[in-house]
Amino acid sequence: MKLFNSIDPVILTLIDGKLHVLLIERPNKENEPFPNYLSLPGGELLEEDYDLEASINRILKAKTGIEVNYVEQLQTFGNKNRDPRSWTVSISYIAIINHEKVTLNETNKAKWVSVSEAKKMHLAFDHNEILNIAIQRVNNKVNYSSLPIHFLPEEFTFPELQKVYEEILGETLDKSSFRSKITDADFIEVIPDKKIKIGAFRPAQLYKIKNQIHNFDSNFKRKNKM
Amino acid sequence: MKLFNSIDPVILTLIDGKLHVLLIERPNKENEPFPNYLSLPGGELLEEDYDLEASINRILKAKTGIEVNYVEQLQTFGNKNRDPRSWTVSISYIAIINHEKVTLNETNKAKWVSVSEAKKMHLAFDHNEILNIAIQRVNNKVNYSSLPIHFLPEEFTFPELQKVYEEILGETLDKSSFRSKITDADFIEVIPDKKIKIGAFRPAQLYKIKNQIHNFDSNFKRKNKM
Repeated sequence: MKLFNSIDPVILTLIDGKLHVLLIERPNKENEPFPNYLSLPGGELLEEDYDLEASINRILKAKTGIEVNYVEQLQTFGNKNRDPRSWTVSISYIAIINHEKVTLNETNKAKWVSVSEAKKMHLAFDHNEILNIAIQRVNNKVNYSSLPIHFLPEEFTFPELQKVYEEILGETLDKSSFRSKITDADFIEVIPDKKIKIGAFRPAQLYKIKNQIHNFDSNFKRKNKM
Repeated sequence: MKLFNSIDPVILTLIDGKLHVLLIERPNKENEPFPNYLSLPGGELLEEDYDLEASINRILKAKTGIEVNYVEQLQTFGNKNRDPRSWTVSISYIAIINHEKVTLNETNKAKWVSVSEAKKMHLAFDHNEILNIAIQRVNNKVNYSSLPIHFLPEEFTFPELQKVYEEILGETLDKSSFRSKITDADFIEVIPDKKIKIGAFRPAQLYKIKNQIHNFDSNFKRKNKM
Protein backbone atom coordinates (compact mmCIF):
# COMPACT_ATOMS: atom_id res chain seq x y z
CA MET A 1 0.00 0.00 0.00
CA LYS A 2 1.27 3.44 -0.89
CA LEU A 3 0.46 6.17 1.58
CA PHE A 4 1.13 9.75 2.61
CA ASN A 5 3.69 10.25 5.35
CA SER A 6 3.15 13.29 7.49
CA ILE A 7 5.95 14.85 9.48
CA ASP A 8 4.61 16.18 12.77
CA PRO A 9 6.89 18.21 14.98
CA VAL A 10 6.15 18.87 18.63
CA ILE A 11 7.69 22.36 18.82
CA LEU A 12 8.47 23.29 22.41
CA THR A 13 9.62 26.47 24.11
CA LEU A 14 9.66 28.02 27.56
CA ILE A 15 7.49 31.12 28.11
CA ASP A 16 7.77 32.68 31.57
CA GLY A 17 9.42 29.50 32.72
CA LYS A 18 6.57 27.27 31.56
CA LEU A 19 6.74 24.66 28.84
CA HIS A 20 4.64 25.63 25.78
CA VAL A 21 3.85 23.83 22.53
CA LEU A 22 3.11 25.37 19.13
CA LEU A 23 -0.38 24.47 17.88
CA ILE A 24 -2.33 25.56 14.81
CA GLU A 25 -6.04 25.73 14.18
CA ARG A 26 -7.24 23.35 11.50
CA PRO A 27 -9.29 24.74 8.62
CA ASN A 28 -13.05 24.45 8.47
CA LYS A 29 -13.30 23.01 4.96
CA GLU A 30 -15.10 20.18 3.30
CA ASN A 31 -13.23 16.86 3.42
CA GLU A 32 -10.86 18.18 6.07
CA PRO A 33 -11.29 16.22 9.28
CA PHE A 34 -11.25 17.88 12.70
CA PRO A 35 -12.44 21.34 11.56
CA ASN A 36 -11.28 24.14 13.90
CA TYR A 37 -9.49 21.71 16.20
CA LEU A 38 -6.00 22.57 17.36
CA SER A 39 -3.27 20.32 16.00
CA LEU A 40 0.48 19.97 15.77
CA PRO A 41 1.81 21.98 12.81
CA GLY A 42 2.67 19.12 10.48
CA GLY A 43 3.69 18.87 6.87
CA GLU A 44 4.00 16.29 4.16
CA LEU A 45 7.04 14.42 2.87
CA LEU A 46 7.93 15.76 -0.58
CA GLU A 47 9.66 14.13 -3.51
CA GLU A 48 12.25 16.92 -3.55
CA ASP A 49 13.33 16.44 0.08
CA TYR A 50 16.70 14.75 0.11
CA ASP A 51 15.93 12.82 3.30
CA LEU A 52 13.79 12.92 6.43
CA GLU A 53 16.14 15.41 8.07
CA ALA A 54 15.64 17.76 5.10
CA SER A 55 11.87 17.31 5.40
CA ILE A 56 11.67 18.15 9.07
CA ASN A 57 14.00 21.12 8.66
CA ARG A 58 11.93 22.46 5.74
CA ILE A 59 8.72 22.08 7.75
CA LEU A 60 10.15 23.68 10.88
CA LYS A 61 11.44 26.61 8.85
CA ALA A 62 8.04 27.01 7.19
CA LYS A 63 6.17 26.94 10.48
CA THR A 64 8.48 29.09 12.60
CA GLY A 65 10.60 31.06 10.14
CA ILE A 66 13.79 30.25 12.06
CA GLU A 67 16.48 27.65 12.55
CA VAL A 68 15.68 25.53 15.57
CA ASN A 69 17.96 24.92 18.55
CA TYR A 70 17.40 21.21 18.73
CA VAL A 71 15.59 18.52 16.74
CA GLU A 72 15.28 14.83 17.38
CA GLN A 73 13.08 12.12 15.96
CA LEU A 74 10.46 11.08 18.50
CA GLN A 75 8.56 8.08 17.16
CA THR A 76 6.56 6.98 14.13
CA PHE A 77 2.85 6.51 14.57
CA GLY A 78 0.49 4.82 12.16
CA ASN A 79 -2.84 3.08 12.05
CA LYS A 80 -6.11 2.72 10.18
CA ASN A 81 -8.00 5.19 12.34
CA ARG A 82 -5.81 8.12 13.18
CA ASP A 83 -7.03 9.93 10.10
CA PRO A 84 -10.63 9.14 9.09
CA ARG A 85 -9.65 9.42 5.40
CA SER A 86 -7.16 6.53 5.26
CA TRP A 87 -4.25 4.64 6.78
CA THR A 88 -1.62 7.26 7.55
CA VAL A 89 1.84 7.32 9.02
CA SER A 90 3.15 10.23 11.06
CA ILE A 91 6.88 10.54 11.63
CA SER A 92 7.04 12.78 14.67
CA TYR A 93 9.84 14.96 15.98
CA ILE A 94 10.63 17.08 19.00
CA ALA A 95 12.00 20.55 18.32
CA ILE A 96 13.10 23.13 20.89
CA ILE A 97 13.16 26.76 19.88
CA ASN A 98 13.43 30.24 21.27
CA HIS A 99 9.88 31.60 20.97
CA GLU A 100 11.10 35.20 20.99
CA LYS A 101 12.65 34.70 17.58
CA VAL A 102 9.48 33.24 16.06
CA THR A 103 6.88 35.25 14.18
CA LEU A 104 3.71 33.23 14.28
CA ASN A 105 1.91 32.59 11.03
CA GLU A 106 -1.45 34.38 11.12
CA THR A 107 -2.98 32.39 8.27
CA ASN A 108 -2.48 29.19 10.23
CA LYS A 109 -3.82 30.71 13.42
CA ALA A 110 -0.71 29.36 15.10
CA LYS A 111 -0.30 29.92 18.81
CA TRP A 112 1.72 28.90 21.82
CA VAL A 113 -0.33 26.88 24.29
CA SER A 114 1.03 25.83 27.68
CA VAL A 115 1.62 22.09 27.73
CA SER A 116 -0.59 21.67 30.78
CA GLU A 117 -3.48 23.37 28.91
CA ALA A 118 -2.82 21.49 25.67
CA LYS A 119 -2.97 18.16 27.48
CA LYS A 120 -6.50 18.97 28.64
CA MET A 121 -7.71 19.84 25.12
CA HIS A 122 -8.96 17.39 22.54
CA LEU A 123 -6.40 17.89 19.78
CA ALA A 124 -6.92 16.71 16.19
CA PHE A 125 -6.01 13.16 15.10
CA ASP A 126 -3.85 11.34 17.69
CA HIS A 127 -1.97 14.51 18.54
CA ASN A 128 -2.73 14.20 22.25
CA GLU A 129 -0.89 10.89 22.24
CA ILE A 130 2.04 12.33 20.29
CA LEU A 131 2.25 15.32 22.65
CA ASN A 132 2.15 13.06 25.72
CA ILE A 133 4.93 10.86 24.40
CA ALA A 134 7.01 13.92 23.46
CA ILE A 135 6.71 15.37 26.96
CA GLN A 136 7.53 12.00 28.49
CA ARG A 137 10.65 11.78 26.28
CA VAL A 138 11.79 15.29 27.20
CA ASN A 139 11.10 14.56 30.83
CA ASN A 140 13.06 11.31 30.75
CA LYS A 141 15.97 12.86 28.90
CA VAL A 142 16.37 15.47 31.58
CA ASN A 143 17.80 12.86 33.84
CA TYR A 144 20.78 12.05 31.75
CA SER A 145 21.27 14.60 29.01
CA SER A 146 21.98 18.20 28.22
CA LEU A 147 18.70 18.57 26.31
CA PRO A 148 17.17 21.20 28.66
CA ILE A 149 19.99 23.58 27.84
CA HIS A 150 18.38 24.19 24.46
CA PHE A 151 15.50 25.95 26.17
CA LEU A 152 17.89 28.66 27.37
CA PRO A 153 19.57 31.58 25.64
CA GLU A 154 23.26 31.18 24.83
CA GLU A 155 24.34 32.62 28.17
CA PHE A 156 22.64 31.66 31.40
CA THR A 157 23.14 31.39 35.15
CA PHE A 158 23.10 28.24 37.25
CA PRO A 159 19.75 29.11 38.87
CA GLU A 160 18.22 29.65 35.40
CA LEU A 161 19.46 26.22 34.34
CA GLN A 162 18.01 24.66 37.49
CA LYS A 163 14.62 26.32 36.84
CA VAL A 164 14.41 24.70 33.37
CA TYR A 165 15.12 21.26 34.78
CA GLU A 166 12.56 21.85 37.51
CA GLU A 167 9.87 22.96 35.04
CA ILE A 168 10.38 19.93 32.82
CA LEU A 169 10.55 17.47 35.70
CA GLY A 170 7.67 19.16 37.50
CA GLU A 171 9.50 19.09 40.81
CA THR A 172 11.85 21.13 42.95
CA LEU A 173 15.48 20.01 42.91
CA ASP A 174 17.99 20.25 45.71
CA LYS A 175 20.39 23.06 44.81
CA SER A 176 23.65 21.45 45.81
CA SER A 177 22.94 18.01 44.37
CA PHE A 178 21.77 19.66 41.13
CA ARG A 179 25.00 21.63 41.00
CA SER A 180 27.14 18.55 41.52
CA LYS A 181 25.24 16.50 38.92
CA ILE A 182 25.62 19.24 36.32
CA THR A 183 29.29 19.66 37.18
CA ASP A 184 29.86 15.91 36.79
CA ALA A 185 28.00 15.89 33.49
CA ASP A 186 30.53 18.44 32.25
CA PHE A 187 28.60 20.00 29.39
CA ILE A 188 28.63 23.65 30.46
CA GLU A 189 31.48 26.04 31.12
CA VAL A 190 32.02 29.36 32.81
CA ILE A 191 32.19 32.42 30.56
CA PRO A 192 35.29 34.10 31.98
CA ASP A 193 34.84 37.56 33.44
CA LYS A 194 31.14 37.57 32.70
CA LYS A 195 28.74 38.02 35.57
CA ILE A 196 25.26 39.39 35.73
CA LYS A 197 23.84 41.41 38.59
CA ILE A 198 20.34 40.45 39.68
CA GLY A 199 18.69 42.65 42.29
CA ALA A 200 20.56 43.01 45.56
CA PHE A 201 22.39 39.67 45.28
CA ARG A 202 26.05 39.27 44.48
CA PRO A 203 26.63 39.04 40.72
CA ALA A 204 25.80 35.63 39.22
CA GLN A 205 28.28 33.82 37.02
CA LEU A 206 27.22 33.27 33.41
CA TYR A 207 27.66 29.89 31.71
CA LYS A 208 27.46 28.52 28.17
CA ILE A 209 27.35 25.09 26.51
CA LYS A 210 30.75 23.47 26.37
CA ASN A 211 32.26 22.53 23.03
CA GLN A 212 29.97 21.95 20.11
CA ILE A 213 26.83 20.03 20.87
CA HIS A 214 25.17 19.03 17.63
CA ASN A 215 21.66 20.28 17.16
CA PHE A 216 20.46 17.24 15.26
CA ASP A 217 20.46 14.37 17.63
CA SER A 218 19.53 10.76 17.16
CA ASN A 219 17.83 9.15 20.10
CA PHE A 220 20.74 8.27 22.25
CA LYS A 221 23.76 10.28 21.20
CA ARG A 222 23.91 12.18 24.43
CA LYS A 223 23.42 9.35 26.80
CA ASN A 224 25.31 9.57 30.05
CA LYS A 225 25.86 13.27 29.70
CA MET A 226 24.06 13.70 32.95
CA MET B 1 3.88 12.09 -2.44
CA LYS B 2 2.54 8.62 -1.70
CA LEU B 3 5.14 6.01 -0.83
CA PHE B 4 5.64 2.42 0.22
CA ASN B 5 6.69 2.14 3.84
CA SER B 6 8.83 -0.83 4.71
CA ILE B 7 9.04 -2.26 8.19
CA ASP B 8 12.56 -3.49 8.88
CA PRO B 9 13.26 -5.38 12.06
CA VAL B 10 16.75 -5.93 13.42
CA ILE B 11 16.15 -9.37 14.96
CA LEU B 12 18.77 -10.16 17.57
CA THR B 13 19.65 -13.25 19.57
CA LEU B 14 22.58 -14.68 21.51
CA ILE B 15 24.26 -17.79 20.10
CA ASP B 16 27.05 -19.23 22.25
CA GLY B 17 27.08 -15.96 24.14
CA LYS B 18 27.59 -13.84 21.03
CA LEU B 19 25.15 -11.34 19.61
CA HIS B 20 23.73 -12.45 16.24
CA VAL B 21 21.38 -10.80 13.76
CA LEU B 22 18.92 -12.47 11.36
CA LEU B 23 19.73 -11.70 7.72
CA ILE B 24 18.19 -12.93 4.48
CA GLU B 25 19.66 -13.22 1.03
CA ARG B 26 17.99 -10.97 -1.52
CA PRO B 27 16.70 -12.51 -4.75
CA ASN B 28 18.57 -12.33 -8.01
CA LYS B 29 15.74 -11.01 -10.15
CA GLU B 30 15.27 -8.28 -12.68
CA ASN B 31 14.30 -4.91 -11.16
CA GLU B 32 15.27 -6.09 -7.69
CA PRO B 33 18.17 -4.00 -6.40
CA PHE B 34 21.08 -5.54 -4.47
CA PRO B 35 20.79 -9.08 -5.95
CA ASN B 36 22.19 -11.77 -3.61
CA TYR B 37 23.14 -9.19 -0.96
CA LEU B 38 22.27 -9.94 2.64
CA SER B 39 19.62 -7.68 4.12
CA LEU B 40 17.40 -7.26 7.16
CA PRO B 41 14.22 -9.35 6.77
CA GLY B 42 11.73 -6.55 6.12
CA GLY B 43 8.14 -6.42 5.02
CA GLU B 44 5.64 -3.94 3.77
CA LEU B 45 2.90 -2.05 5.55
CA LEU B 46 -0.47 -3.51 4.52
CA GLU B 47 -3.91 -1.93 4.34
CA GLU B 48 -5.28 -4.67 6.60
CA ASP B 49 -2.83 -4.06 9.44
CA TYR B 50 -4.62 -2.30 12.26
CA ASP B 51 -1.57 -0.28 13.25
CA LEU B 52 2.24 -0.30 13.13
CA GLU B 53 2.40 -2.68 16.07
CA ALA B 54 0.21 -5.16 14.16
CA SER B 55 2.48 -4.75 11.11
CA ILE B 56 5.70 -5.46 12.94
CA ASN B 57 4.18 -8.39 14.79
CA ARG B 58 2.85 -9.87 11.54
CA ILE B 59 6.25 -9.50 9.87
CA LEU B 60 8.16 -10.95 12.83
CA LYS B 61 5.81 -13.92 12.93
CA ALA B 62 6.24 -14.46 9.18
CA LYS B 63 10.03 -14.31 9.37
CA THR B 64 10.60 -16.32 12.54
CA GLY B 65 7.44 -18.34 13.09
CA ILE B 66 7.31 -17.38 16.78
CA GLU B 67 6.23 -14.72 19.21
CA VAL B 68 9.17 -12.51 20.08
CA ASN B 69 10.45 -11.74 23.57
CA TYR B 70 10.82 -8.02 23.06
CA VAL B 71 10.07 -5.45 20.36
CA GLU B 72 10.71 -1.74 20.29
CA GLN B 73 10.64 0.86 17.59
CA LEU B 74 14.16 1.94 16.68
CA GLN B 75 14.00 4.84 14.24
CA THR B 76 12.47 5.79 10.90
CA PHE B 77 14.81 6.20 7.98
CA GLY B 78 14.02 7.75 4.63
CA ASN B 79 15.69 9.41 1.70
CA LYS B 80 15.90 9.61 -2.05
CA ASN B 81 18.78 7.18 -2.38
CA ARG B 82 18.36 4.32 0.02
CA ASP B 83 16.46 2.38 -2.61
CA PRO B 84 17.55 3.03 -6.21
CA ARG B 85 13.93 2.66 -7.37
CA SER B 86 12.42 5.61 -5.47
CA TRP B 87 12.10 7.62 -2.27
CA THR B 88 11.36 5.09 0.47
CA VAL B 89 10.66 5.13 4.16
CA SER B 90 11.81 2.36 6.49
CA ILE B 91 10.28 2.14 9.95
CA SER B 92 12.81 0.04 11.82
CA TYR B 93 12.45 -2.04 14.96
CA ILE B 94 14.60 -4.03 17.33
CA ALA B 95 13.37 -7.50 18.26
CA ILE B 96 14.99 -9.95 20.65
CA ILE B 97 14.18 -13.62 20.29
CA ASN B 98 15.27 -17.05 21.41
CA HIS B 99 16.95 -18.48 18.31
CA GLU B 100 16.39 -22.06 19.48
CA LYS B 101 12.67 -21.65 18.94
CA VAL B 102 13.06 -20.33 15.40
CA THR B 103 12.91 -22.45 12.29
CA LEU B 104 14.64 -20.49 9.58
CA ASN B 105 12.85 -20.00 6.30
CA GLU B 106 14.76 -21.83 3.58
CA THR B 107 13.13 -20.00 0.69
CA ASN B 108 14.46 -16.72 2.04
CA LYS B 109 17.90 -18.15 2.67
CA ALA B 110 17.64 -16.68 6.13
CA LYS B 111 20.56 -17.09 8.51
CA TRP B 112 22.01 -15.92 11.79
CA VAL B 113 25.17 -13.87 11.30
CA SER B 114 27.26 -12.66 14.22
CA VAL B 115 26.91 -8.91 14.60
CA SER B 116 30.67 -8.43 14.37
CA GLU B 117 30.68 -10.26 10.99
CA ALA B 118 27.56 -8.48 9.73
CA LYS B 119 29.10 -5.09 10.45
CA LYS B 120 31.99 -5.92 8.14
CA MET B 121 29.70 -6.94 5.26
CA HIS B 122 28.13 -4.63 2.74
CA LEU B 123 24.44 -5.17 3.42
CA ALA B 124 21.66 -4.15 1.01
CA PHE B 125 20.19 -0.63 1.06
CA ASP B 126 21.18 1.35 4.19
CA HIS B 127 20.94 -1.75 6.36
CA ASN B 128 24.47 -1.32 7.70
CA GLU B 129 23.40 2.03 9.12
CA ILE B 130 20.21 0.57 10.60
CA LEU B 131 22.16 -2.31 12.15
CA ASN B 132 24.75 0.06 13.63
CA ILE B 133 22.10 2.27 15.17
CA ALA B 134 20.26 -0.78 16.55
CA ILE B 135 23.40 -2.09 18.21
CA GLN B 136 24.19 1.33 19.62
CA ARG B 137 20.65 1.52 21.05
CA VAL B 138 20.88 -1.92 22.64
CA ASN B 139 24.30 -1.07 23.98
CA ASN B 140 23.10 2.21 25.47
CA LYS B 141 20.03 0.63 26.99
CA VAL B 142 22.13 -1.88 28.86
CA ASN B 143 23.23 0.86 31.18
CA TYR B 144 19.86 1.68 32.54
CA SER B 145 17.32 -0.95 31.59
CA SER B 146 16.33 -4.57 31.92
CA LEU B 147 16.49 -5.07 28.13
CA PRO B 148 19.33 -7.65 28.20
CA ILE B 149 17.17 -10.00 30.21
CA HIS B 150 15.18 -10.77 27.07
CA PHE B 151 18.21 -12.52 25.60
CA LEU B 152 17.99 -15.14 28.36
CA PRO B 153 15.67 -18.09 28.94
CA GLU B 154 13.00 -17.64 31.60
CA GLU B 155 15.26 -18.94 34.34
CA PHE B 156 18.88 -17.92 34.61
CA THR B 157 21.77 -17.53 37.02
CA PHE B 158 23.51 -14.32 38.01
CA PRO B 159 26.69 -15.21 36.09
CA GLU B 160 24.59 -15.88 32.96
CA LEU B 161 22.99 -12.46 33.32
CA GLN B 162 26.39 -10.82 33.75
CA LYS B 163 27.69 -12.55 30.59
CA VAL B 164 24.86 -11.06 28.50
CA TYR B 165 25.61 -7.55 29.75
CA GLU B 166 29.30 -8.11 29.07
CA GLU B 167 28.68 -9.35 25.51
CA ILE B 168 26.49 -6.37 24.64
CA LEU B 169 28.77 -3.83 26.25
CA GLY B 170 31.87 -5.53 24.85
CA GLU B 171 33.68 -5.30 28.17
CA THR B 172 34.27 -7.24 31.36
CA LEU B 173 32.28 -6.06 34.37
CA ASP B 174 33.29 -6.17 37.99
CA LYS B 175 31.30 -8.97 39.61
CA SER B 176 30.36 -7.27 42.85
CA SER B 177 29.46 -3.88 41.38
CA PHE B 178 27.39 -5.65 38.71
CA ARG B 179 25.58 -7.56 41.42
CA SER B 180 24.83 -4.44 43.42
CA LYS B 181 23.61 -2.51 40.33
CA ILE B 182 21.25 -5.31 39.37
CA THR B 183 20.03 -5.62 42.93
CA ASP B 184 19.34 -1.87 43.08
CA ALA B 185 17.55 -1.99 39.73
CA ASP B 186 15.19 -4.51 41.30
CA PHE B 187 13.82 -6.20 38.20
CA ILE B 188 14.75 -9.82 38.91
CA GLU B 189 13.82 -12.14 41.74
CA VAL B 190 15.01 -15.41 43.22
CA ILE B 191 13.06 -18.52 42.26
CA PRO B 192 12.60 -20.11 45.69
CA ASP B 193 14.14 -23.54 46.20
CA LYS B 194 15.50 -23.64 42.68
CA LYS B 195 19.22 -24.04 42.20
CA ILE B 196 21.25 -25.48 39.40
CA LYS B 197 24.44 -27.47 39.80
CA ILE B 198 27.23 -26.53 37.39
CA GLY B 199 30.35 -28.70 37.46
CA ALA B 200 32.11 -28.92 40.82
CA PHE B 201 30.84 -25.55 42.10
CA ARG B 202 28.23 -25.11 44.73
CA PRO B 203 24.71 -24.96 43.22
CA ALA B 204 23.85 -21.62 41.61
CA GLN B 205 20.63 -19.81 42.46
CA LEU B 206 18.14 -19.41 39.61
CA TYR B 207 16.42 -16.06 38.96
CA LYS B 208 13.52 -14.80 36.84
CA ILE B 209 12.14 -11.43 35.75
CA LYS B 210 10.18 -9.72 38.49
CA ASN B 211 6.52 -8.86 37.94
CA GLN B 212 5.30 -8.45 34.42
CA ILE B 213 7.61 -6.53 32.11
CA HIS B 214 5.73 -5.69 28.94
CA ASN B 215 7.21 -7.02 25.76
CA PHE B 216 6.21 -4.07 23.64
CA ASP B 217 8.17 -1.12 24.79
CA SER B 218 8.16 2.46 23.63
CA ASN B 219 11.51 4.10 23.69
CA PHE B 220 11.78 5.10 27.28
CA LYS B 221 9.30 3.12 29.34
CA ARG B 222 11.98 1.28 31.23
CA LYS B 223 14.20 4.22 31.97
CA ASN B 224 15.99 4.11 35.28
CA LYS B 225 15.42 0.44 35.72
CA MET B 226 19.16 0.01 35.99
